[in-house]
Amino acid sequence: MIVVMKPGAPKCQIDDVVALIEQLGLRSHLVEGSELTVVAALGEKRDGAKQALETMEGVEKVVPILAPYKMASTEIKREPTVVKARNLVVGGGRLGVIAGPCSVESREQILEIAQIVKEAGAAGLRGGAFKPRTSPYSFQGLKEKGLQLLAEARDATGLAVVTEVMAKEQVDLVAQYADVLQVGARNMQNYPLLEAVGESRLPVLLKRGPSATMDEFLLAAEYILKTGNQQVILCERGIRTFEDHTRFTLPLATVPYLHEKTHLPVMVDPSHGTGKASLVATMARAAVGAGADGLIVEIHPHPEKALSDGYQALTPAAFRQMMRDCRKVADAVGLKM
Amino acid sequence: MIVVMKPGAPKCQIDDVVALIEQLGLRSHLVEGSELTVVAALGEKRDGAKQALETMEGVEKVVPILAPYKMASTEIKREPTVVKARNLVVGGGRLGVIAGPCSVESREQILEIAQIVKEAGAAGLRGGAFKPRTSPYSFQGLKEKGLQLLAEARDATGLAVVTEVMAKEQVDLVAQYADVLQVGARNMQNYPLLEAVGESRLPVLLKRGPSATMDEFLLAAEYILKTGNQQVILCERGIRTFEDHTRFTLPLATVPYLHEKTHLPVMVDPSHGTGKASLVATMARAAVGAGADGLIVEIHPHPEKALSDGYQALTPAAFRQMMRDCRKVADAVGLKM
Amino acid sequence: MIVVMKPGAPKCQIDDVVALIEQLGLRSHLVEGSELTVVAALGEKRDGAKQALETMEGVEKVVPILAPYKMASTEIKREPTVVKARNLVVGGGRLGVIAGPCSVESREQILEIAQIVKEAGAAGLRGGAFKPRTSPYSFQGLKEKGLQLLAEARDATGLAVVTEVMAKEQVDLVAQYADVLQVGARNMQNYPLLEAVGESRLPVLLKRGPSATMDEFLLAAEYILKTGNQQVILCERGIRTFEDHTRFTLPLATVPYLHEKTHLPVMVDPSHGTGKASLVATMARAAVGAGADGLIVEIHPHPEKALSDGYQALTPAAFRQMMRDCRKVADAVGLKM
Amino acid sequence: MIVVMKPGAPKCQIDDVVALIEQLGLRSHLVEGSELTVVAALGEKRDGAKQALETMEGVEKVVPILAPYKMASTEIKREPTVVKARNLVVGGGRLGVIAGPCSVESREQILEIAQIVKEAGAAGLRGGAFKPRTSPYSFQGLKEKGLQLLAEARDATGLAVVTEVMAKEQVDLVAQYADVLQVGARNMQNYPLLEAVGESRLPVLLKRGPSATMDEFLLAAEYILKTGNQQVILCERGIRTFEDHTRFTLPLATVPYLHEKTHLPVMVDPSHGTGKASLVATMARAAVGAGADGLIVEIHPHPEKALSDGYQALTPAAFRQMMRDCRKVADAVGLKM
Repeated sequence: MIVVMKPGAPKCQIDDVVALIEQLGLRSHLVEGSELTVVAALGEKRDGAKQALETMEGVEKVVPILAPYKMASTEIKREPTVVKARNLVVGGGRLGVIAGPCSVESREQILEIAQIVKEAGAAGLRGGAFKPRTSPYSFQGLKEKGLQLLAEARDATGLAVVTEVMAKEQVDLVAQYADVLQVGARNMQNYPLLEAVGESRLPVLLKRGPSATMDEFLLAAEYILKTGNQQVILCERGIRTFEDHTRFTLPLATVPYLHEKTHLPVMVDPSHGTGKASLVATMARAAVGAGADGLIVEIHPHPEKALSDGYQALTPAAFRQMMRDCRKVADAVGLKM
Repeated sequence: MIVVMKPGAPKCQIDDVVALIEQLGLRSHLVEGSELTVVAALGEKRDGAKQALETMEGVEKVVPILAPYKMASTEIKREPTVVKARNLVVGGGRLGVIAGPCSVESREQILEIAQIVKEAGAAGLRGGAFKPRTSPYSFQGLKEKGLQLLAEARDATGLAVVTEVMAKEQVDLVAQYADVLQVGARNMQNYPLLEAVGESRLPVLLKRGPSATMDEFLLAAEYILKTGNQQVILCERGIRTFEDHTRFTLPLATVPYLHEKTHLPVMVDPSHGTGKASLVATMARAAVGAGADGLIVEIHPHPEKALSDGYQALTPAAFRQMMRDCRKVADAVGLKM
Repeated sequence: MIVVMKPGAPKCQIDDVVALIEQLGLRSHLVEGSELTVVAALGEKRDGAKQALETMEGVEKVVPILAPYKMASTEIKREPTVVKARNLVVGGGRLGVIAGPCSVESREQILEIAQIVKEAGAAGLRGGAFKPRTSPYSFQGLKEKGLQLLAEARDATGLAVVTEVMAKEQVDLVAQYADVLQVGARNMQNYPLLEAVGESRLPVLLKRGPSATMDEFLLAAEYILKTGNQQVILCERGIRTFEDHTRFTLPLATVPYLHEKTHLPVMVDPSHGTGKASLVATMARAAVGAGADGLIVEIHPHPEKALSDGYQALTPAAFRQMMRDCRKVADAVGLKM
Repeated sequence: MIVVMKPGAPKCQIDDVVALIEQLGLRSHLVEGSELTVVAALGEKRDGAKQALETMEGVEKVVPILAPYKMASTEIKREPTVVKARNLVVGGGRLGVIAGPCSVESREQILEIAQIVKEAGAAGLRGGAFKPRTSPYSFQGLKEKGLQLLAEARDATGLAVVTEVMAKEQVDLVAQYADVLQVGARNMQNYPLLEAVGESRLPVLLKRGPSATMDEFLLAAEYILKTGNQQVILCERGIRTFEDHTRFTLPLATVPYLHEKTHLPVMVDPSHGTGKASLVATMARAAVGAGADGLIVEIHPHPEKALSDGYQALTPAAFRQMMRDCRKVADAVGLKM
C-alpha cells in the first residue's frame, strides 16, 4: 500500500501514520517529495489496514498495490484451469458451447431443443428451472419438474446440464440433477450461495453482475475457490451503461483482460449481453475472435412462444449458422471448438 | 402496449401481430401512419405478451405503457405509507434518522454509539452483525453475538434496531432481535430473501442495487408487498457510474421521482452514497433539501479503528453537527425531524 | 508518481525504470516489498513521464500522486473566487441565481421573462441565441438578433446576460452583448473555444460534460485560467448514466467535492440535470442544501409553446415558489441569496 | 409519436392534446384502454412537436416512433456506402486498416512508421498534427509542420493520410494535406466543425463521443450528410462506463447494430477503446469478428518514447502479427482485407 499524505501535512501526522503502519505489523518506508510525502506500507497485506490508514488525519488517499484476490490469480497458478463436465470442455484452448432455452417449459420443448443443440455440435444444455425474475408477476420456472426434464434430456443426448441455482437452500436439490451449477448475475455477490455451490463440488458457471468491477468479479470467484472447488467458469454477460439500443453493453475486452489476470476460463453470453436476437450470432463470432473459452446462447424453436426472453433467442436455423461461423473464427484464432 | 411495426412491414405480418394480440386475450387497435404502422394492445397486461410480440417478424419494437409494478404505485394508494418501529417514524412528513457503526464490533462500541445516536436525536440504531463483504478475507461480522449486543443497546436506549439479513435462512434468527430488517444493495434482487423478509411481518429497509433502474427497484419492493407486508422503506444509497471521486454516485432526484410514483417512503444513505466522510454531512443536508423521508448514516467514535468502512464514518461531533444542520433544512422544507 | 513493478520483475527491468526516471529529470526512490517492488519518482511533474514509464517492460501500473491541474487548485489559492457580473455575485457565501428561457424566441418573450426573473429576485438572465442542437432539423436559435434582444432585456432590467457561445469565431460577437459567456457541456473540451473565451476577459460559465471526470472538468477550467482570466464558474448539469427516468443523473456530491479541491465557485443546473419540470424545484432546493454557489434554471411563461426544451421549463409561478423555498434553505445552510 | 396520458386524465386534457396535434399539422388518433388513453400523432414528424406535447397537462410521456435521423438511415438508402481515399476502401465487404502514431513527432518517426504500415498491408496512415489534449500542459502537436510531414510520408508510400481537425477555422489548412478528415470524440457534437468538414468534400472519419447514444451519433453524421458529403465513416472508440480496468469500454455490438440502421461504414478503434497495448490486437480480431468495415490502430516503433499515448501503441512486430491474425478472421467472416 502507498499512503499519500496531503500537501503540507505536518510531521506529527506523518509520524502517526508510520506508527499505525508498524502497529498493524507492516513495515513503513518514507518517501519525501518536493510537494508531498508518501509512506509505503510493506509486508503481508492485512484487510482493514487500508481503511484504518485512510481515516487518519493528513492522509489524502491510500493506493493499494497488490490485487485483492489470490487464488484466482495467475500469480498463484499460471497454467489455465480447464473445466470439464461430461463432453463439455472449457478452457486451455478448448471452446465449449452451451445452448438451450431461457426456461424449461415442457418435456417436448426441452427434448426437441436438446437434440438441436447436440446435432449442431454443442456439448452443454442450458435451461432455467428456478428462474429469478425482475417482476413477481413473471413466469418463475417449473422448479423441480424442470430439473427432472433437464435430466431426461441429458439421458437422451449426453449433453451436460447447466442450470441456475438461486439460493443456498436449493443447492442440494439442483445438484442432484445438474452437471454445472450456474450462479446468475443478480446473485454474483450472494456470498452464502457462493460458498454453498463451492461445497457442492460441481463445476460452477459464475456470471458477472451488471455493475461488477473485475476485482469484485474475481473476489466472488474467490469465495468459491476458497471452498477448495477449482472448477469455476467466469461468464461475461454484459454490464449496465447508458446505452439503450442493447439490453446490456457487452464489453469483450473482459476476455483478454481476465486471461492476463486469472487462470480461470472465460465464457461469453451474447444473448443477455445484447438482448436482441439479431445481434447474438455476430457477437458470438466477435467473442470467439476475442479468444473466449466458451459461449452460452439462448435458442428456442419458436421464440415468439417462449415463456421468457424470446426476444433474445436464436431459432435453430440461426443457431446452426452461428455454430458454423464460430467454428471458422475459432480456427482463425487457434481455438479448438 | 404499443407494437411498432418496421417501415414497410407487409400486411401479413401486421395481421399476425393482431392475431397474436387477440390470442393473448388483449384487444388490438390499428393505427396506420404515413411511414409505418403501430398496433395498440389494450386490456389487462399479461407478462410474456410483450416478449412474444417483440419476437414476431416485422416488429421493430414494443413500447410498454403501464408501469410494471402495481402495489407500490400511487395509482393504487395515494396517501403516503408511514413506516414505524418504536420511536422511529419514516414518511408522511416525518423524517426518521438511523445512525450507527458499519459493523457491531464489541459491547463497549455499540453501547457507546447507541448513547451518542440517542442524544443527538435520532431514533434508529444501525449496525451490521452479518456483513456481506466483497472479499472473503474481510471481517464478516459478529453474527448472532452482534445481534445480542444490538438488542442490549436497544434495551439501554429505546432506539429501534436496524440490521441486515443476508439470506433467507437467517431471517428467523435476525427477526428475533431486530426492529427493522435491512436488505442490502447486493441482495435487492435476491427474491427468496425478499419473500422471507416480507413474511417476517417486520418493517423492511430495502436498499437500491447500484445498477437498478427505478422499475427494478419498485418491482423488488413489490415482491415484499405481495406477501401482505406494507411496511417497506426504499433507500437510495448510490449507483455505479464512471465517477471515481466518490465511491458511488448519489442521485438525489430519486427522491422526488419516487414520491411521484410510489406511496412508500424514501430514505437516503449518504455514507455509502459518497464513501467519503468529508462529504457525508453535506449530502445529508442535500437529501433533506430533496425531501427525503429519512437518513441512514454511519458513525464511529474512532473511525480509524473501525473494522469496516471507517473512511465513510462520521465522528460523534460531526454527526451532532449534521443533525443540527439537517434539522434547520428540514424546517425550511416543511419536514418534521 | 509511483511506478509499480510486476511481481517477479527482474532487476534489469527495475534498473531500466530507475534510469528512465533520472533521464526524465526526476529523482527515483526504490521501495522493495516482499511481493513486489515500487519505484517512486520525485520532483516537478513532467507530462509524458507517466506515459513513458507505463510502457516499459515489467511495469504493472503507474499511479499519479499530484492532481493534474494547478491554477484551479486550492493548493494554489485557498480563498474562494467570487465571480461578479453586474448584480450577479457567485461564490464566497453568495448564491447567485440565473434564470430564463432555453432559447430567446421573440422580443415579447424575452422581455416578459426578464421581468419575471427580476421580480423573483434573481440577478442573471439566461437565454440561448446560438443553440447547439443534437438534430440538424431542430431550431438553431435567433443568432445575433437573439443577442440584441438579450441586451435590450438587460437594459430594461439590469440583469446580467448569460448566453452560450459555440465556437471560437463567435466569441467576439457574443462578447459584445453578453455579461457572462457560457460554454456548453458539448464543448467542455473544445480547447480553441476555451482559450478564446478566456481571452475575452468576460466571466465564463463552464458546464461539465456529461461524461467528464472531475479532473477533466478542472483541466478544462485550467485552459481558461491559463489565459489569465480568473472569473470562471463551474456548473454541474448532470452526467450520463444508465438511469433513464431522468434525462441525466444530477450528482450533487460534486458540489462539496469541488469545494475541497478548487477555489472556483460551483453552480448547479437542475433543469438539464433532471430534464423534467416536476423535479426541477426540488432539486434546486437540494443543490442549495449541498452548498451550491449558484443555480441556473430554465423558465418559460408557456412551456408547451417553447421552441426548445419546454419539458424542463418551470412556469413563472413555479419559479417564484422555488425562489421562496430556496431562500429558506439558503438561510438554513448559511448562504446569502 | 405516441402520447401516453396519465391514468385518470380528464377528457378536457385529452381534447387539448388532440387539438395541439392537429394544430401542429399532424393527424391524431385516439386509443382508449381500460386504464389509460393514448393518442397517436401521425404525419411528417416536426421537431418541437414532441416537446410541446410533453409539457401539456395530463401527459405522462411521449414516445417517438420514427428514428430522428433520415439521410443516414437504411430506410433512405439500402446499399452500403463505400468510402474511398487513395487505396483505402472502407465498407461494402472491404475492411480498411488505418495505422500510425498518436502524434506526428518528427520526420524520421513518421517516415519510418509509414513504411511499416505499408509493408504490413494497411492503406491508411494516421497521425495527429493538431492534438486535443485533456491537459493544457500536454504536448499539443506539431501543427502545420506535422501536416507537411504526413504529406511527405504519403508521397513516399501512397498511403492515404487521416488526421484530426479540431476547429472550423483549421479545416481549410488541414484539407490541403489530408485525404480523410478526422473529427475526434470530444468534437462529435461540435456542429460548426461538422458542417465545415462536410463542406470540405473530403471523406470524414467521425468518432463516437464517449457518452453518445446511437441516435446522437447518427444525428452528428446527419450534420455532415446534410452538406451533401456522403463519404462518412463512423468510428466506435469506446464509451465511458464504471469499468476502470480499461481506459474506455469498447462495445462491439455497435457494429452489427449500426449495420442494421445505417448504410454508412463502421470502423473500430481498439487503441482508444482499451487504452492498453496488451489488449489492442485481441480486440482488433474481435472487431473483425463483429463485421467491422475498418480498423484504426496506434503504433509506434518505440512506445516508451512516444510523446503521447504510448501505453496504447503497438510495436511494429505486434502490429504485423495483428494484421496476420485479422486477415484470417476476416476470411472466416467473409470480409476482404
